[in-house]
Amino acid sequence: MEIRSLYFDGSILHILDQRYLPFEVIDVECRSASDVWEAINKMKIRGAPAIGVAAAYGMYLGLRDFEGSKEEFIKKATELKSYLDSARPTAVNLAWATKRILDRILLNKEKSVEELKEIVLEEAKNIEKEDVERNFKIGEYGSELFSDNDTIMTICNTGELATVKHGTAFSVIKRAFEKYKNISVIALETRPYLQGARLTAFELKEAGIPFKLITDNMAAFIMQKGLVTGIITGADRIASNGDTANKVGTYMLAVLAHFHKIPFYVAAPLSTIDLNIESGKEIPIEERNPDEVTHCMEKRVAPLGVEVYNFSFDITPHELITGIITDKGVAYPPFKKTIKKLFES
Amino acid sequence: MEIRSLYFDGSILHILDQRYLPFEVIDVECRSASDVWEAINKMKIRGAPAIGVAAAYGMYLGLRDFEGSKEEFIKKATELKSYLDSARPTAVNLAWATKRILDRILLNKEKSVEELKEIVLEEAKNIEKEDVERNFKIGEYGSELFSDNDTIMTICNTGELATVKHGTAFSVIKRAFEKYKNISVIALETRPYLQGARLTAFELKEAGIPFKLITDNMAAFIMQKGLVTGIITGADRIASNGDTANKVGTYMLAVLAHFHKIPFYVAAPLSTIDLNIESGKEIPIEERNPDEVTHCMEKRVAPLGVEVYNFSFDITPHELITGIITDKGVAYPPFKKTIKKLFES
Repeated sequence: MEIRSLYFDGSILHILDQRYLPFEVIDVECRSASDVWEAINKMKIRGAPAIGVAAAYGMYLGLRDFEGSKEEFIKKATELKSYLDSARPTAVNLAWATKRILDRILLNKEKSVEELKEIVLEEAKNIEKEDVERNFKIGEYGSELFSDNDTIMTICNTGELATVKHGTAFSVIKRAFEKYKNISVIALETRPYLQGARLTAFELKEAGIPFKLITDNMAAFIMQKGLVTGIITGADRIASNGDTANKVGTYMLAVLAHFHKIPFYVAAPLSTIDLNIESGKEIPIEERNPDEVTHCMEKRVAPLGVEVYNFSFDITPHELITGIITDKGVAYPPFKKTIKKLFES
Repeated sequence: MEIRSLYFDGSILHILDQRYLPFEVIDVECRSASDVWEAINKMKIRGAPAIGVAAAYGMYLGLRDFEGSKEEFIKKATELKSYLDSARPTAVNLAWATKRILDRILLNKEKSVEELKEIVLEEAKNIEKEDVERNFKIGEYGSELFSDNDTIMTICNTGELATVKHGTAFSVIKRAFEKYKNISVIALETRPYLQGARLTAFELKEAGIPFKLITDNMAAFIMQKGLVTGIITGADRIASNGDTANKVGTYMLAVLAHFHKIPFYVAAPLSTIDLNIESGKEIPIEERNPDEVTHCMEKRVAPLGVEVYNFSFDITPHELITGIITDKGVAYPPFKKTIKKLFES
């Protein structure tokens, strides 16, 4: 079974609804920008790279039937970008992808509205295609950091479903598994949305990579027992100094890795790095619906009327990160310098 | 609504089935030792002190209909102890309670079998009664360590349901809430069994103590944000050097508390301290059914055929513990010395 988080059939953007995977396979048909907004906001599609690509197609879906002057087209495109960006605040790939579309429009102002529509579609396809290449490279660079007999711990889902293909941290794991004899994985279930139990477990199984699933609160004890040799996670936004926003629980793993002297890596394409911000303090942390915490798989787990915190992401300070694996190579501390270098290379 | 984890009506031991709380209230009627074994093993009743009391009554239920010689009675009691102890290996209160019953029998060898049966019942009632007093004292001593405006983080359930009354760590929280103006709690949901979401949230709500429920992987970020002033957990077994076995995730909290310089307390009656063992290395860690991890509230969360780790407890090394709150006072490092002193007091 080939897993495709999304594909555009020339008229409709098809999104595989990740809320019910792997138990139900539901194809969400997006015909408009608001369909895409809804899919991203409700987490029918998730994963920083995947929502970037979805938003790029969302720009096209929102513009393809436009009729009016070029000024109005540009105004509409600018509004659409803000609208789509608002679907989820933390992952920067979303705003990065819509900005690429908008920039292409602004660079081609002399073209007709119909030509601009074609350019928008072309750019969305470019972003999609590049995602595949970038993730493959992340796997190549990252797999060099591991070796035979490693057991890699990971959180959330960073696989095919979080991207167009290959995944980010998952791409590293998959490539390491292909290259070395004996690689195994420990996957955190990743409450509340259970991306680890539902999606990563599914993808690891499909890839034939041996793994154990654990509840999130077991990670520390597994490290204490010496059952982990390295940790790798994805990222939703990385600041210029290396501070990393990722699925809540990532910071927990980084602190625990530090305490247990286990290397802690982040894997993400350069498009996840936000050079506009100095540090993690500037990254907005999405707080989602309390129902996600009071429920598990739509079944209530807490009494009625209970208050919760539901931070969807956390910030890992750069001091706790061993290396950041990108499509241009691996950055090591001091990240401020090495990240800049990657962008210049 | 008064919560009673268990009570003996003179003929039947009634156990409130904690697997379905707070959504369903099911009364489990234990008429035999094997009913009690089943209730403990299947976690219909849980919490180190509560299973100790249940096992004590289990001894009585297993002996009350005995007919035969005194030698056979003693042999039967010895076998029953081993049998009940095998229901769950980590919490020492179980073996401690059954040993108390057996010791009372051996101390009264000169009595008749019928008299010994009465002594067994009396001792079970003593253990039950003492649990209430001990937990009240834990609350008194422990509440001195907190003050107004504290936000206390806790994991699992250490309340009325985990004991006969008051709870252990929960007793401290409840007493602190009574004494100071402004105490709030952050409760970890505690996968896989969700004791935090189901039981602690329910008890905090009943007690009117303000709290927020979080998923286990959120604890680190909540500490980073400065939203916690102290952490308190229960214990299933404490070694003579202070190493503490408790619900998996406790060790995670201890490491995170250490990193964030937040005090980390353990609350338990002296009966939870096992002077027969030097360190945590000697504490057996129960591994439970994989289905607990692949399911949540009996709903499947992971694909079929997935392998898991399901360590039910973890070990927190004494170096990470600020203080151990007991019914005889608070022990501080070096625990080896101070714990010994508490037993002598």
